[in-house]
Amino acid sequence: MPELRKDPIVGRWVVVAESRSQRPNDFAQSAGSRSACPFCEGNENQTPPEILAYRSNGPANGPGWRVRVVPNKYPALERESDLAQGPSGLYERQAGVGAHEVIIETPEHLTSTAAVSEPQLAEVYWAYRDRLLDLQRDSRLVYGLVFRNVGPAAGASLEHVHSQLIATPILPVSVAEELAGAADYYARQNRCVYCDVVKQELADGQRVVFETAEFAAFCPFASRLPFETWVVPKQHHSHYESLTRPLAGELAHVMRCVMAKLETALDRPAYNHIIHTAPFDTQQLRHYHWHIEIMPRLTNVAGFEWGSGFFINPVPAHEAAAVLRSAEVFSSGPSTTLTDRSRTKTSTTAQSMKDA
Amino acid sequence: MPELRKDPIVGRWVVVAESRSQRPNDFAQSAGSRSACPFCEGNENQTPPEILAYRSNGPANGPGWRVRVVPNKYPALERESDLAQGPSGLYERQAGVGAHEVIIETPEHLTSTAAVSEPQLAEVYWAYRDRLLDLQRDSRLVYGLVFRNVGPAAGASLEHVHSQLIATPILPVSVAEELAGAADYYARQNRCVYCDVVKQELADGQRVVFETAEFAAFCPFASRLPFETWVVPKQHHSHYESLTRPLAGELAHVMRCVMAKLETALDRPAYNHIIHTAPFDTQQLRHYHWHIEIMPRLTNVAGFEWGSGFFINPVPAHEAAAVLRSAEVFSSGPSTTLTDRSRTKTSTTAQSMKDA
Repeated sequence: MPELRKDPIVGRWVVVAESRSQRPNDFAQSAGSRSACPFCEGNENQTPPEILAYRSNGPANGPGWRVRVVPNKYPALERESDLAQGPSGLYERQAGVGAHEVIIETPEHLTSTAAVSEPQLAEVYWAYRDRLLDLQRDSRLVYGLVFRNVGPAAGASLEHVHSQLIATPILPVSVAEELAGAADYYARQNRCVYCDVVKQELADGQRVVFETAEFAAFCPFASRLPFETWVVPKQHHSHYESLTRPLAGELAHVMRCVMAKLETALDRPAYNHIIHTAPFDTQQLRHYHWHIEIMPRLTNVAGFEWGSGFFINPVPAHEAAAVLRSAEVFSSGPSTTLTDRSRTKTSTTAQSMKDA
Repeated sequence: MPELRKDPIVGRWVVVAESRSQRPNDFAQSAGSRSACPFCEGNENQTPPEILAYRSNGPANGPGWRVRVVPNKYPALERESDLAQGPSGLYERQAGVGAHEVIIETPEHLTSTAAVSEPQLAEVYWAYRDRLLDLQRDSRLVYGLVFRNVGPAAGASLEHVHSQLIATPILPVSVAEELAGAADYYARQNRCVYCDVVKQELADGQRVVFETAEFAAFCPFASRLPFETWVVPKQHHSHYESLTRPLAGELAHVMRCVMAKLETALDRPAYNHIIHTAPFDTQQLRHYHWHIEIMPRLTNVAGFEWGSGFFINPVPAHEAAAVLRSAEVFSSGPSTTLTDRSRTKTSTTAQSMKDA
């Protein structure tokens, strides 16, 4: 049974989940094949029964789906958890109550989000919304974190394109810090800090990667990692669940372009894709603004970062953005209208990162 | 010139240091050889001039040293930095003033701390102290972080055993959190939380890895990573610089044993070794307690950790500690007296981690 443990000094919670060490791993042996992949159409019996599926045909837990959500077979947290161990001396612990789901993004054995079609990807972003809306009805859960790990360096163990959703009974410390920072800014300025960041980035332009009517993609000023990219809706919404069908379609378009640019410029990097949204138990917040952070994993986090919380980034955001802007993607597709900012920068920065 | 940039939402500082992307890398090509290694005796001209050296003979910047400290050739922060750029809209930046030094731990091309002799390692721990005492005389600097990265997965680019010291003009956020958490505990209990943790761990025993008269090594209750191990002095001291010669010798003994156990049990894992100590500008603090955290890098930090600050650890601390306790090291050496707690546990946990 998973257990939550609290560090007595900084109050950081850790999930101790022994079952996680038994996960299968595509990367440890040869690359995963269709017949062995539990996420491929036809192999539905290799996963726990589905929680949600968007189907073109067929009954539950058989072929015919487009997007499929199943419980994680090796969960970090579990819906049914009856452990209620009290503190032991200095140490606090809590039952590992929560949910850990896998969103299988395509029935085909695709290994790149850029290879998923735009309508298909729109359904994936819609499935995130459906699952968040369902999970927040469980009053024990306070937060739902949706993330995608791609590549072993980013913590992925299976290569078939998938995302995960972990719902927690405790507000994650990183989310609490973002909420507090944004509330502090709102108290001083009476404006949303994310709205102001988007305005400044679009006015400045040097860190912008891509822009559509409703979304801005840019490398943030204080990027922690080389080629860190944020995708932020231009309209203020605190909760991802406020997504509409048209917005999901536009988001799919933006994300597919941004991912393709990262893949082209950096030769298919490992990355984490994380949705930052407001907690379940809040109404629309004036100070918080949902967004997506993409963290390419080109370098390893080292001792200085671990010890200090400071990050050392060798690639300034404007250089990373210039490389991504000039990466040509989907050149023949009619649906892609790249904002044509500076294209003069060559990809030497990207090249030197790959060599480093 | 390195630059410090502040995230406008959470207030996190990032070092933007373009020169860092030009670092040489042992691991990208073949393994480093003695003739090519800038840290080997005889190759002193391949580093900037030394800041400190403990010498048996010879003049500065030639052979004859035992421990040698040089400026990092690709610094994250620099002593002489005249940039004083102001804020730009929402964004704050600051000159990347600081120091970034390399402590070369041995003149021989050794790649494992366990292979360094105990007297030699005692001099390394003494050199950390010497450098911290010197750097804190620069009033622009508030903190000195000493760390060792071993293996590419831990962010190392050269294999010859070395540590680094980065002195910063801003208190690192992780250090601020530890100080605040410890101060909070002291305010409530009138005791140091680290002293209490050591007492509880030694009384309980199940998470203890190794113990001497002056030090306790244990896997912390809320370990973030599998086999995370802390080494804490039993006597209360807030500043690492309070180390005495006899304590440096005993610390070398403990660290060499703990590192050998990690290497034996986990087949030479990549790891980060980080000294947690009080800021430069504080007197002895009753609530803070210096210690060393060793973070083996067996698994990659994934999207959930990035997005939440929660860690998922598949190996409970008592299992990791049992594996490390039972790892036999230096069996013929007279200086090693392992505390003989439970030795029944086999190393299946370690094995399953290596396979995962």
